[in-house]
Amino acid sequence: MNLENILKKYDLERLSVATLASHSAINILRGAKARGLRTIAISKSDATWFYKRLWFIDEVWEAVPEEFRKLSPKLVEMNAILIPHGSLIEYVGWKRILEIQVPILGNRYLLEWEADQEKKMLLLERSGIPTPRVYKRVEDIDRPVIVKLPGAKGGRGYFVARNRDEASRRLKNLNDNYIIQEYLIGVPAYYHYFSSRIMNRIEIFGMDIRYETNVDGRTLGLAEPSFVVVGNIPLVLRESLLPKIQEYGERFAKAVEELIPPGLIGPFCLESIIGDDLSIRVFEFSARIVAGTNTYMGVGSPYSIMYFEKPIDMGERIAIEIIEASRSGKLLDILT
Amino acid sequence: MNLENILKKYDLERLSVATLASHSAINILRGAKARGLRTIAISKSDATWFYKRLWFIDEVWEAVPEEFRKLSPKLVEMNAILIPHGSLIEYVGWKRILEIQVPILGNRYLLEWEADQEKKMLLLERSGIPTPRVYKRVEDIDRPVIVKLPGAKGGRGYFVARNRDEASRRLKNLNDNYIIQEYLIGVPAYYHYFSSRIMNRIEIFGMDIRYETNVDGRTLGLAEPSFVVVGNIPLVLRESLLPKIQEYGERFAKAVEELIPPGLIGPFCLESIIGDDLSIRVFEFSARIVAGTNTYMGVGSPYSIMYFEKPIDMGERIAIEIIEASRSGKLLDILT
Amino acid sequence: MNLENILKKYDLERLSVATLASHSAINILRGAKARGLRTIAISKSDATWFYKRLWFIDEVWEAVPEEFRKLSPKLVEMNAILIPHGSLIEYVGWKRILEIQVPILGNRYLLEWEADQEKKMLLLERSGIPTPRVYKRVEDIDRPVIVKLPGAKGGRGYFVARNRDEASRRLKNLNDNYIIQEYLIGVPAYYHYFSSRIMNRIEIFGMDIRYETNVDGRTLGLAEPSFVVVGNIPLVLRESLLPKIQEYGERFAKAVEELIPPGLIGPFCLESIIGDDLSIRVFEFSARIVAGTNTYMGVGSPYSIMYFEKPIDMGERIAIEIIEASRSGKLLDILT
Repeated sequence: MNLENILKKYDLERLSVATLASHSAINILRGAKARGLRTIAISKSDATWFYKRLWFIDEVWEAVPEEFRKLSPKLVEMNAILIPHGSLIEYVGWKRILEIQVPILGNRYLLEWEADQEKKMLLLERSGIPTPRVYKRVEDIDRPVIVKLPGAKGGRGYFVARNRDEASRRLKNLNDNYIIQEYLIGVPAYYHYFSSRIMNRIEIFGMDIRYETNVDGRTLGLAEPSFVVVGNIPLVLRESLLPKIQEYGERFAKAVEELIPPGLIGPFCLESIIGDDLSIRVFEFSARIVAGTNTYMGVGSPYSIMYFEKPIDMGERIAIEIIEASRSGKLLDILT
Repeated sequence: MNLENILKKYDLERLSVATLASHSAINILRGAKARGLRTIAISKSDATWFYKRLWFIDEVWEAVPEEFRKLSPKLVEMNAILIPHGSLIEYVGWKRILEIQVPILGNRYLLEWEADQEKKMLLLERSGIPTPRVYKRVEDIDRPVIVKLPGAKGGRGYFVARNRDEASRRLKNLNDNYIIQEYLIGVPAYYHYFSSRIMNRIEIFGMDIRYETNVDGRTLGLAEPSFVVVGNIPLVLRESLLPKIQEYGERFAKAVEELIPPGLIGPFCLESIIGDDLSIRVFEFSARIVAGTNTYMGVGSPYSIMYFEKPIDMGERIAIEIIEASRSGKLLDILT
Repeated sequence: MNLENILKKYDLERLSVATLASHSAINILRGAKARGLRTIAISKSDATWFYKRLWFIDEVWEAVPEEFRKLSPKLVEMNAILIPHGSLIEYVGWKRILEIQVPILGNRYLLEWEADQEKKMLLLERSGIPTPRVYKRVEDIDRPVIVKLPGAKGGRGYFVARNRDEASRRLKNLNDNYIIQEYLIGVPAYYHYFSSRIMNRIEIFGMDIRYETNVDGRTLGLAEPSFVVVGNIPLVLRESLLPKIQEYGERFAKAVEELIPPGLIGPFCLESIIGDDLSIRVFEFSARIVAGTNTYMGVGSPYSIMYFEKPIDMGERIAIEIIEASRSGKLLDILT
């Protein structure tokens, strides 16, 4: 895609923000509208009725994920910038996203690294961020592990084995395509960041805890734990951990900069377990907005006041970056 | 009660909002005051001192619940609209609420259905919303169950039995007036709605998780689980579930419309367990404001931005409905 | 320290708020800046870089905690008021805080009572607030207990023993300097207050739940519970409990007034377990701002609307008190 050529045709006074109608689309499109941008939701047919009712969405286009690519000319005509999120990646797939002929906020080449468990862990290790131990072979397991089956999404297809024997038993009829990670003991905490190319900084925007069924329910020992994400709970972090969170965010940005040009742009997330020695171990990242930012949608994040006078949410943060980039002639710096 | 006759006497420039001083009265009365309405709290003697200090309550009237009805003429004189909540229903009782000669925001005839477990489940089933299995006979129990004893309130008087034998043992000295429901495995999630007659829509206003003692504490296996609600924790939901939540809210509204005229008006709540197949099963409803809406009191709900430019809370939402109804001559549409 | 003499030299048009760069410094200093005060962060060398970037901090001074006292003349020159928080007490120590020659918002003499477990429980009992049973001797243990080792901080150095035998076994190699408390069964809830000398009232400002590792994680029975605080989760409380919360706050203020002149000033916290009989038992207090108030930083607390028209946070609340005290010539009433 020739981004520069496409952008040349854009009417910068009439920029649109577009995304798939799911995951954090309300957050993204409300924030865009609140800041004066036009908004487009691309929706699967079963959700169109829902998104059509929302006042801040100028246009709802119905499309199956397979046809998503074909919308490119129409999106370009609307001077649209596409905002990726978890459902876009899940439904459209990182490969097809690479082929979309529309400017994307963020580094689209990084999405492949997010989708591939091996590359994902490699990038985290390259960042110098502490991560859980990974077991290549069942025989090496020496502690409780979490096994992520191929195609595991949103916590589905994960299971915990308390020791080598249990792991061995539960894995014996599965093919090899799984990841075995140390099961970290501690509490989960997810850190939301914004990598601003315009203001030249990594911002800590907030934290959340994922709300997962059934492990966060009252199973009373009546069912095996499962880890399907159904929502998010707001969290604030012990302030003495913030410099470390900041450091990990910047290390991650540096590694992306080195390995995957043009580097880290826009919202991202590091996903961790905090141990009782206050160690933070990151087992996952998201190279785009996460649903945890919905916890402060509209209201604004407690941590956004570190950068802005009034609390703002992640949808507004994205819109601000687009508007500032456009004003200062730097749109090419935040798009791929 | 002749609602029309009462309303004819009302000075619409001087409407008041009144409620019992408990549950979500702060939310309701602050919202009303913020929107320019007069406010009245009716308080039990032991809480009067607390509510008297609050700047947004114009009048605190002391009364025992039994005398509540006698306040009707005084409330009418103040052009008052009464807002029901969980404590009003608990202390005054749905039967006596039927006799109160004051306009009530919402459908007062629905409160009986909320109070009666059998009618409650009947209405949910009639709505076509998935519900937990109900066991008429102990002998039929084939999985873990939750038993709700007669008069169970706010989670008190519930217990879980892991199987038929345990249920049988724990029930043998009790009379028959209990409900046996399948114990749903998953995570609890409570959906707050507002049924607007004026804007002609069912609004999703937010979600919460109830904070229950001792089941949400660290009992470390040292005590039997109990389910007494002491507070609420904010929650945002996986966005792909929102259309389903919207659909269930509308189905419920439709069933109420058909069975209990004049239908569903104002705040209500569906109370569910989400399983790891992302199924939502509703085990309870509230036909009035719930305390979970207190999580965004003053600050505004993340989901309110789906309908309003700035986040608002449930107290303000109620006030807006009253003011808009009054302005457009439609007060009769939202009162019973 | 002659507070009056120091204050005489202060330029009240150019007051500063100063604190240690940790714990709730962002909350405190952002609130001060938002209300027009100057702001100073005193930082340990490893966090200076982080705080230097924050727009609302006018000056970041680097110092080791031992040197903190030496900064007094410089702070006085800046017309500074020092705001104590948990990390200040931990790093500087209550004894050295007594010697700091700078006005402190709050009662600095109370910090000793907070630091000493015996005095702490004594003050709570003197307040007439229900507290957990304390065991002087292992032999008396008749139920599960929590043992707090000397120097336990932020939940570190706590352990739970299910009975006398377990307590005895785990304590036998330790010296005597521990506290044995009844392990309360229920849910934790922490109440944030503000004792206003200027508006002459105890304000309930909010609540939170501490997020502790690993006890709040998914240990799946794979590790002993530990109680290290890593963050805070927002909570709203059953409204019918608010008068009791208000009463306990006022009883505590009264006891401080009687025992430790000049009484209770500014932010404080009572830390409790709520049982399923809705009893509240307080096992701890904090005589200064707590990190739980960070949950509503910038955004404002749902409960702050009981006292103010718009939601405000605790940093702003402190700033308002300072500004009002200064305007009305009452700064001496809120400082020690």
